[in-house]
Amino acid sequence: MTVVSAERPAPLGVLAAGGRVPIMVADAAVRAGRPVFIVALRGLALPDVTRFPHLMVPIGMPGRVFNAFRGAGCREIVIVGSATRPRIRDIRLDFRALQLITRYARAMLGGDDKLLTWLVRLFEAEGFTVRGAHEIAPELLAPAGALGRHRPSALDEADIAIGIDYLATAGRFDIGQAVVVVNHCIVAVEAAEGTDLMLARVAELRAAGRLRLSGRAGVLVKTPKPAQDRRVDMPAIGSSTVAGAVRAELRGIAVAAGETLIADAAETAAAAERAGLFVTGIALKAGPA
Amino acid sequence: MTVVSAERPAPLGVLAAGGRVPIMVADAAVRAGRPVFIVALRGLALPDVTRFPHLMVPIGMPGRVFNAFRGAGCREIVIVGSATRPRIRDIRLDFRALQLITRYARAMLGGDDKLLTWLVRLFEAEGFTVRGAHEIAPELLAPAGALGRHRPSALDEADIAIGIDYLATAGRFDIGQAVVVVNHCIVAVEAAEGTDLMLARVAELRAAGRLRLSGRAGVLVKTPKPAQDRRVDMPAIGSSTVAGAVRAELRGIAVAAGETLIADAAETAAAAERAGLFVTGIALKAGPA
Repeated sequence: MTVVSAERPAPLGVLAAGGRVPIMVADAAVRAGRPVFIVALRGLALPDVTRFPHLMVPIGMPGRVFNAFRGAGCREIVIVGSATRPRIRDIRLDFRALQLITRYARAMLGGDDKLLTWLVRLFEAEGFTVRGAHEIAPELLAPAGALGRHRPSALDEADIAIGIDYLATAGRFDIGQAVVVVNHCIVAVEAAEGTDLMLARVAELRAAGRLRLSGRAGVLVKTPKPAQDRRVDMPAIGSSTVAGAVRAELRGIAVAAGETLIADAAETAAAAERAGLFVTGIALKAGPA
Repeated sequence: MTVVSAERPAPLGVLAAGGRVPIMVADAAVRAGRPVFIVALRGLALPDVTRFPHLMVPIGMPGRVFNAFRGAGCREIVIVGSATRPRIRDIRLDFRALQLITRYARAMLGGDDKLLTWLVRLFEAEGFTVRGAHEIAPELLAPAGALGRHRPSALDEADIAIGIDYLATAGRFDIGQAVVVVNHCIVAVEAAEGTDLMLARVAELRAAGRLRLSGRAGVLVKTPKPAQDRRVDMPAIGSSTVAGAVRAELRGIAVAAGETLIADAAETAAAAERAGLFVTGIALKAGPA
């Protein structure tokens, strides 16, 4: 018996927020022969997480999260999935949360970077090792070059370059990691609203005639922030991003190759292909790993 | 007779877009003993411009604009007022416009800065001198310091500093000139949507619980872009900006002292005072005049 348990690797812990990526990471681990245990954040995680050994936990219960992972024998943790900052009234705090808040209240004042860096430190302080989703499932990373048949034009390439330059410049302010660039102009910048609402705004500005354009024009450019810990909050796109770009009548989407997760890559590529949109991975020169 | 006309200064030409500022500039000129002639852009200029000698002209008719100003004997022109980029279908082009577009099509692809710089050059090429609204009506400029009784707190001052730093950094991309900063985080960045829609977005994000804040928090920071020609597109605030900031539940508004126009300063100050908002002019260190 001890032989069997010694051979069986310790399960990978997955702290799952919203979207398909946590499930894809769990599937990748299982495919590689490693068991998983998911702690799913209630109100964020998709019901699909129940396919795996799991515990549903309300937001604000770090004590229960740590205990659940320890109880399942997890040493390595992946923190993954999309999250909107929760409403205060939806948060219930456990005793550990109150202790941590007293100690780390300052981090709560910061942007997303600080909050996520703080989350990683918290897990490390509890003895866990935090891994990036891309270490477990490298197949989720956007490759360099066009994903499908459609390719950026020379004008699109120029717009992409402007977007990348802006995001690298503005990154130190820990705001959003996406912009829409149309005919050399930055027409929308993401901050607290997130990529989907920014794309909806572009669609509205076009419908209202505030952006004078005819036909498909412009590019969504999305890159990680320069100082961002790649183990958490790696930018992600998926078929909903494609749908948003179609509604905004963009010509395509450019992401940082090797530094962006594509949820359901096959489905996302097919949606872009059908809509006539390009999705392209740009090799950025440098940046922390 | 010739003696009389020699004593009378040439009228100031005012190319009037939207809002109260063109009217305030015209009033200031008249108060200083100088006649004015307004060319009012149809669909943008307020009906109040009809108090002055004027001509209403559709957007896209530069030939008629130049002829009208020349016919009225104007040598100096002020280009002033708020504008949203017009819908293509609302534009009718005169012959001069078509000539100019052929020659300057490239400028149309650029951001607002380029477009306005191009507009100034156009008037100069036609022999006019372009003056800034603030040269005619310096009383419209935001003074340094708080406008009323309410003052920024230490946290507000820190948020203002972040906003100014961001705007100075992002300015070279010729995007918006305003941000909302709350508790050290940039939560909204203005691009093509303009300040009013950006403030409306912050109000919506708060209502939807996407920004977890209780009570008044944060600051609207608005400064001119670093490379912006101060003779055109000087940033402006007014009582509608105060109303937007109130709906977004901000604590106040910070603008660049001496580089921001305040429309109806008394009314704007009174609206802020009633709402408990601060409006403060920040002395920026440097920048082109």
